Amino acid sequence: MNENAPLPVVLALDIGGTKTALTVADLHGARLADRTVETHADQGAQAGLKNAVDAARTLLDGREPIAVGVSTIGIPGEDAVALAPNIPGWEELALGRELALAFPQSQLRLVNDVKAAARHEHDHGALAGADPGLYLNLGTGLAAAIVVGGTVLGGRHGAAGEIGYNLRSPADVGKRDPVPLEAVVSGKAHAQRPLHEGEFLEQLAFHLVNLTIALDPERIVVGGGMVRSWEALHGPLRRALDAAVPYPPELLRAAHPYEAPLLGALALAVEAAHHPV
Amino acid sequence: MNENAPLPVVLALDIGGTKTALTVADLHGARLADRTVETHADQGAQAGLKNAVDAARTLLDGREPIAVGVSTIGIPGEDAVALAPNIPGWEELALGRELALAFPQSQLRLVNDVKAAARHEHDHGALAGADPGLYLNLGTGLAAAIVVGGTVLGGRHGAAGEIGYNLRSPADVGKRDPVPLEAVVSGKAHAQRPLHEGEFLEQLAFHLVNLTIALDPERIVVGGGMVRSWEALHGPLRRALDAAVPYPPELLRAAHPYEAPLLGALALAVEAAHHPV
Repeated sequence: MNENAPLPVVLALDIGGTKTALTVADLHGARLADRTVETHADQGAQAGLKNAVDAARTLLDGREPIAVGVSTIGIPGEDAVALAPNIPGWEELALGRELALAFPQSQLRLVNDVKAAARHEHDHGALAGADPGLYLNLGTGLAAAIVVGGTVLGGRHGAAGEIGYNLRSPADVGKRDPVPLEAVVSGKAHAQRPLHEGEFLEQLAFHLVNLTIALDPERIVVGGGMVRSWEALHGPLRRALDAAVPYPPELLRAAHPYEAPLLGALALAVEAAHHPV
Repeated sequence: MNENAPLPVVLALDIGGTKTALTVADLHGARLADRTVETHADQGAQAGLKNAVDAARTLLDGREPIAVGVSTIGIPGEDAVALAPNIPGWEELALGRELALAFPQSQLRLVNDVKAAARHEHDHGALAGADPGLYLNLGTGLAAAIVVGGTVLGGRHGAAGEIGYNLRSPADVGKRDPVPLEAVVSGKAHAQRPLHEGEFLEQLAFHLVNLTIALDPERIVVGGGMVRSWEALHGPLRRALDAAVPYPPELLRAAHPYEAPLLGALALAVEAAHHPV
């Protein structure tokens, strides 16, 4: 082995509506350097992506990663990111192609942030052994992920769990552009137009209860930035589940509530480094 | 082969809140004789079960079935049927033990009616090839079944899909004994206290839309007695899905809207005859 050759590394990014987290790790997934930067979603998609790539280049310090794993909101693809309203312009961004230009020598993997988090919490966190497991992300946006037999449910178009689009009331049935649940129940909504805490929790609990009834999960695990208020969340959600769900599941804070999407992306990058396509 | 020996047969029953359907079939599942009787749920669980067993004995005409497959509401077990409010006393009935006494020489299989129907529609009906697939049963009660990778999702306690228990409004969060969705949106509710058709459909569409968003199914298939009004159901549900779901799925009438639970139970009985335990 050439001792002067740089240690091969992988790169993982979690590009969220508020922050972008990055890590460089060895091929076993051991983290060598971390960084978090503002996404500056208000400056648009291209600026957000440039921020992320610039931060990655600094972190890589001249090395080319064998693989890059990227988790982000919505359904990231070659030519667009579907269902990603929380980063203006993100839906029109050719994320896959832009990243391939930025990291031309690397294997590239894209994944929805909440599904990546659920996978990580199932494999190495609070969802371990739960079947079915339900991961609820209370971050800038609102989404969930369903784990069945150890596999995260993608759905037909990768859109399973996107409960931020839920209708809030039967009166909204059939309406053009109804106000979706995420506009009221999410970190972004909470910051812009705070509901009374009771109303926020009631709306959240209503949708969580009905989703729980549909899935009969063994355990619900909650991650995302709003988990910083776990003390305020846990009691009301616990009581709502106990009162309405035929078989109330366990309800836990995620083991890695803020980093699970990054760690899920890292796992993908490590996998890609060992199994390139 | 002794030509005087009776042809070996299996028996299937679908015990619903309104009617009990029965069929006797050969070991390939070819139906030899059918019957439908009133469940007389108002007379209680024991009477309902006796009706069913008496009808089965008539249909069997002296033969002992190799296997008996039974589909019914709720979660049927040895000592109770959980989540089965639509047949008074059913929840306290030791269904498995009673049936074992009635058919002591037979392999016995119990299954939830809507899950049995979903399996049959996936294997031989309108859900074929759909992944995920969503089966919605509008019968005496209201329930759904989720098919992922060809397997019906049971949930941790067999209660997945029991959306009749859904909360109807955020105002019901935390309440003791809230009025569940099934009390308003079901064949039984419709007969007892009909909503305006518009309100019935709006309530149903609201919950169907949100469940569809969570699962991102390829196709929704609707079965149960209320499918007799498919012309009135299809348009409003189609428009509600198209207006609110990011990737609106197909929406079809079941291939066997009234018999799918019986046919699912028959498939179980045939399987049990070939693979006894």
